[in-house]
Amino acid sequence: MAEQVRAIRTRRTILAAAAKVFEENGYQAATISQILSEAGVTKGALYFHFQSKEDLAQGVLAEQDQRLIVPGRASKVQEIVDVVMLHAYRLQTDPMVRAGVRLSMDQLADGLDRSGPFLRWAEVGNDLLARARAQGELLPHVVPSETADVIVGSFAGIQSMSQAVCDYRDLVSRVSALMRHLLPSVVVPSVLASLDLSDTRGATVYAEAVKALNELELSAAS
Amino acid sequence: MAEQVRAIRTRRTILAAAAKVFEENGYQAATISQILSEAGVTKGALYFHFQSKEDLAQGVLAEQDQRLIVPGRASKVQEIVDVVMLHAYRLQTDPMVRAGVRLSMDQLADGLDRSGPFLRWAEVGNDLLARARAQGELLPHVVPSETADVIVGSFAGIQSMSQAVCDYRDLVSRVSALMRHLLPSVVVPSVLASLDLSDTRGATVYAEAVKALNELELSAAS
Repeated sequence: MAEQVRAIRTRRTILAAAAKVFEENGYQAATISQILSEAGVTKGALYFHFQSKEDLAQGVLAEQDQRLIVPGRASKVQEIVDVVMLHAYRLQTDPMVRAGVRLSMDQLADGLDRSGPFLRWAEVGNDLLARARAQGELLPHVVPSETADVIVGSFAGIQSMSQAVCDYRDLVSRVSALMRHLLPSVVVPSVLASLDLSDTRGATVYAEAVKALNELELSAAS
Repeated sequence: MAEQVRAIRTRRTILAAAAKVFEENGYQAATISQILSEAGVTKGALYFHFQSKEDLAQGVLAEQDQRLIVPGRASKVQEIVDVVMLHAYRLQTDPMVRAGVRLSMDQLADGLDRSGPFLRWAEVGNDLLARARAQGELLPHVVPSETADVIVGSFAGIQSMSQAVCDYRDLVSRVSALMRHLLPSVVVPSVLASLDLSDTRGATVYAEAVKALNELELSAAS
């Protein structure tokens, strides 16, 4: 058990080091020996967890996947909004999430398959939209997979623009504006009127999700 | 005159070389000596046109600005659609435009101000939206500067997702889907019904713009 905990810690140390090195040098120019010296682990330890530079990058990319679960909502459209707002909030506050997103936007990273995060997020959106459709929240013409792709793609650009223009200071209000522009062509008016799209939504959902995670861990430990 | 033409050609040769080197190595890792050897020009020639690596990158970034002018349209909203669709078409077909866009999306490029293209495109959008408002094309709640930012930001992400997922093969249909999602919350219904948002719009506008440019150059030469 102690060994397992140590292995998990080592893995996280290596990933954090890789995130930092990729962020400073770009995927292309980064080297495994830079990551080794940043992490302060042995070559053997690194290769025990990761086989290659691409493998390390995929590890960083996967860090933006949901570990924090948004509590279920009666409105599945609100749940989509909450997933998006939570992700924006974590992007502002969590260096690992930021490194993963930047890597997935690195259009210069030859030989790195960056499609994973786009496709995984699109699947999350597609599932929630299908459930929203089943309970009558969507306008009749909406194709869930297409709308999910539009949401994921435009979010990716909105965050990049916010970083370029002001280092993420206005990210939350830009994401809120995006939602106000997209959802009226997706959602029936009565649902639209009941949505919380406010700037503070991300922070609220984050607090809720952390509390839920702590309760889960406590109950698992007892 | 001959000298001026030569200088313009040299500048373009250097920019094309810089675009290639930035694309292959990322901004961070690229060096001026790589660009020199790619361009096959002297150090003196390069420094006559560009003072630094950042200066070269700004030159590449500026290449995505409109050189091709979209012909004026009765509907200013259609004109916005045409600017967006033309840009998507050029992104698929013109290596220099592609290099500029990728560089502006390089979130790992420390020390390079990437905000320029975002802000310049947002200004183009803002101007056209203000004119659309003046002739009654917009819904009353729309704030042109906010909507312009949403369009520019989401376009940036949609193109990045299309590149990551299938190397731009589905770019045009993704951009068309984006427009169909954004415009219903921006435009009055009668204008919306008259817009051409089809997949082939970009190619059509490109042909028109090239023809207009050739006529302009012919009349300037005669």
